[in-house]
Amino acid sequence: MGEIRNVALVGAGVIGAGWAARLVLNGIDVTLCDPDPEAGRKVQEVRDNALRAWRRLTLAPLDHLGRITFLRDLEAAVGDADLIQESAPEREELKRDLLARASRACRPDVVIASSTSGLLPSRLQAAMARPERFVVGHPFNPVYLLPLVEVCGGSLTSDETKQRVADFYRSIGMHPLMLRKEVDGFVADRLLEALWREALHLVNDGIATTDEIDQAIAYGPGLRWSFMGTFLAYRLAGGEAGMRHFMAQFGPTLKLPWTRLEAPELTDALIERIVEQSDAQAGGRSIRELERLRDECLVAVLQGLRAQGQAAGAVLKAHEEKLYEHGHPLVMAEGDNLGKPLRLHEARVLPEWVDYNGHISESRYLQVFGDSSDALSRYVGIDPDYHAAGMTYYTVETHMMHLKEVAAEEPLHVTTQVLGCDAKRLHVFHTLYRTRDEARLATAEQMLLHVDTKAGRACPARPDVLARIQRIAEAHAALPSPEHAGRRVGERRS
Amino acid sequence: MGEIRNVALVGAGVIGAGWAARLVLNGIDVTLCDPDPEAGRKVQEVRDNALRAWRRLTLAPLDHLGRITFLRDLEAAVGDADLIQESAPEREELKRDLLARASRACRPDVVIASSTSGLLPSRLQAAMARPERFVVGHPFNPVYLLPLVEVCGGSLTSDETKQRVADFYRSIGMHPLMLRKEVDGFVADRLLEALWREALHLVNDGIATTDEIDQAIAYGPGLRWSFMGTFLAYRLAGGEAGMRHFMAQFGPTLKLPWTRLEAPELTDALIERIVEQSDAQAGGRSIRELERLRDECLVAVLQGLRAQGQAAGAVLKAHEEKLYEHGHPLVMAEGDNLGKPLRLHEARVLPEWVDYNGHISESRYLQVFGDSSDALSRYVGIDPDYHAAGMTYYTVETHMMHLKEVAAEEPLHVTTQVLGCDAKRLHVFHTLYRTRDEARLATAEQMLLHVDTKAGRACPARPDVLARIQRIAEAHAALPSPEHAGRRVGERRS
Repeated sequence: MGEIRNVALVGAGVIGAGWAARLVLNGIDVTLCDPDPEAGRKVQEVRDNALRAWRRLTLAPLDHLGRITFLRDLEAAVGDADLIQESAPEREELKRDLLARASRACRPDVVIASSTSGLLPSRLQAAMARPERFVVGHPFNPVYLLPLVEVCGGSLTSDETKQRVADFYRSIGMHPLMLRKEVDGFVADRLLEALWREALHLVNDGIATTDEIDQAIAYGPGLRWSFMGTFLAYRLAGGEAGMRHFMAQFGPTLKLPWTRLEAPELTDALIERIVEQSDAQAGGRSIRELERLRDECLVAVLQGLRAQGQAAGAVLKAHEEKLYEHGHPLVMAEGDNLGKPLRLHEARVLPEWVDYNGHISESRYLQVFGDSSDALSRYVGIDPDYHAAGMTYYTVETHMMHLKEVAAEEPLHVTTQVLGCDAKRLHVFHTLYRTRDEARLATAEQMLLHVDTKAGRACPARPDVLARIQRIAEAHAALPSPEHAGRRVGERRS
Repeated sequence: MGEIRNVALVGAGVIGAGWAARLVLNGIDVTLCDPDPEAGRKVQEVRDNALRAWRRLTLAPLDHLGRITFLRDLEAAVGDADLIQESAPEREELKRDLLARASRACRPDVVIASSTSGLLPSRLQAAMARPERFVVGHPFNPVYLLPLVEVCGGSLTSDETKQRVADFYRSIGMHPLMLRKEVDGFVADRLLEALWREALHLVNDGIATTDEIDQAIAYGPGLRWSFMGTFLAYRLAGGEAGMRHFMAQFGPTLKLPWTRLEAPELTDALIERIVEQSDAQAGGRSIRELERLRDECLVAVLQGLRAQGQAAGAVLKAHEEKLYEHGHPLVMAEGDNLGKPLRLHEARVLPEWVDYNGHISESRYLQVFGDSSDALSRYVGIDPDYHAAGMTYYTVETHMMHLKEVAAEEPLHVTTQVLGCDAKRLHVFHTLYRTRDEARLATAEQMLLHVDTKAGRACPARPDVLARIQRIAEAHAALPSPEHAGRRVGERRS
């Protein structure tokens, strides 16, 4: 098989359109064939959504986009293809017919894959020419973002076909899961289908609504499932004693009517098999290590969803707002010592700040300095109401010196010296320290401007805020000017 | 019920320890009671993991940590409690006994909740004093990170109890799901149990290993489940025609042996109920809108997991590395026009850059400038091998002017002028433009230093790199000095 440059897609519904999007994003041309007269528009819309998602997902270069062509005639559509992917509706007779026709019209060396969610490949390939190059490649919606694709051969499928299709899927950023046995519903859909049928019973019995069922997944177990399947998650539920303990503890519940599905009998042989396979999955990592890995992934997922304001991310956001309200922000008080730079902000080097070279991007330092300016504005009395009225300080100018590298997890703190102010301008100097040894990591001299964001122009700060700034500025006027203050880029030491 | 300051935890296994961690992180004291002599150490370890996770998760102030006390005696442990949460093993007799004892030893107004995954509250509360204040509050592991808690009353539970416990769970950052009916396994565990029993059959029948089953979840459907349940996900699988179409299309597969679980009969009444409830969930949002929402969440989750290098995140990372290899980075070529500032980097304002005020943090601008410096270093011939040898340019000094705000999704580009160089130093000036109208958004003057990161000191760049920089510098020497170059912070226009 040479390079795959043109893929024929038989069927352009949700799955076919998703394939089209993933393929053209990877620079591969597609030829689509579907009886729906609206298919062209729909595929274009899915492609646009996919492009939008990928532009957010990655800054990696998307070389050039593949072309999309529609052909009414199946035989013409597959004639030039380097690979065929069929995604017709889940009706065995229909799929068998389309696959047989495609197998006669395409080149003899071309792999023909079906996106079926669970029909048996041995039955689908029975009427095909050269059935050894037929294989199931079952993807998940949206195909352009989810990496999983189940690869399952029928009784006539050759090993070479399975390897070729898996290599191709890998080349377009997917994760092929090679199935060892042909079974109705394969692996993923058997799991999905069991959950789905139980969910239908719950709705049918009036136990829960579709939305309540969705909440029961998305705010809890679904968060774990985004990076860890059910076996590894349950291993952790067993605590330090691991999988054997979990099976012993929850074995009896398999007899309880917690679903309409009968469990297999928990024989010693089955327990032994599960414990062995689970140990292999854990790969020698302790429960505590796996827990930390799980928690880091959960933190990353929750942070991602917080930025979207969705599901568990929305819960976190609301809780944080409450914590900020209750956590008494540091506001200037009578006895405060203003005779030295203020220490208003602490931070920590988060693992995602550190790139693969162990280097921290300079922008992360500026982020910490920005947070320090925010802390200063809270200290002088700017609260959420002040912001809600459209009043705020914006940074208009910054000079930074990058002095020293720092490692992940290091606690940091910032001191802030006020160099000057007037009714609208606030001139500050921040110094970032590694807390452990007070090593100076970076400095930032900043000019902030007080603005009325609704009017879109600078304006004087509120008198009480100004009075507090004035008090600090007067006290700090007695301090020596910090090293690097007033510096131009590249200036030689005088 | 006054404020809850002290919670008694009966049972300190994985779930009890998780409750302890969530509670103390929210400033609430806990008193634990468990026969395991190791419980103290285990709870401490879980608390430490939880603290570590929360410090990464949020910068919101964690006011003060609650205290953890162990008491051997159940009656003593619950005597002072403002709320009791029982998390003993899933044995009905054991739980009934512990709950009855606790109900006699605690204050009469105290809510008593059980963490049971699926035992019926009516049976658990039968032998209790004042059973109306008993309720199930079923959390998910790890309790300190997952927000879901199912709230389910028994026949004797008062509505007030359910509301009180839900308010409390909300106050510690959880998402209570109020169940309308008491049923074995409640809602979440019925779904989990159906999937789990199907998974046990797959292992028992030798169809797949525990790891393969976990992959079938985590690389595909599990990613969706982290923010969207099965009904909303399937609504999208129906395409533009929505839930009715999905039910019509996949209704027949409910008859197929895709799981051992029998589906309910898909009566017109059931279809109608599902379509209505699904429409309510969609809340008038079109399929395309919901798809974009789903994709944004998937992108956020994938990016989070990429940073962790886990599961689907590891697949994405590997694919990106390949794209970077194949994507031909812009390197200086013979005919390049060096007679004007170089245009080497494009970007886009990502939604996560914009805060709730519509303001973009200044550090995002520096991130774009940092990427522009990277683009310049690629342009002068610095490739992955160069970096692998430990050689790189570091930014040592930056001066930025923030000139104009910009909206989400705006395409941006940067031009770069070389102001000077020697063997080790590279002095550049970047200007960030909004591409649509060439409006200047920000400028950055930067001094870069060529370093040998292995030796930890500055060193000359490789001769071919230096020669390219020299060529640019000579050509750019004829350009006028950019406005703001050589400026000190706060300098008045001369």
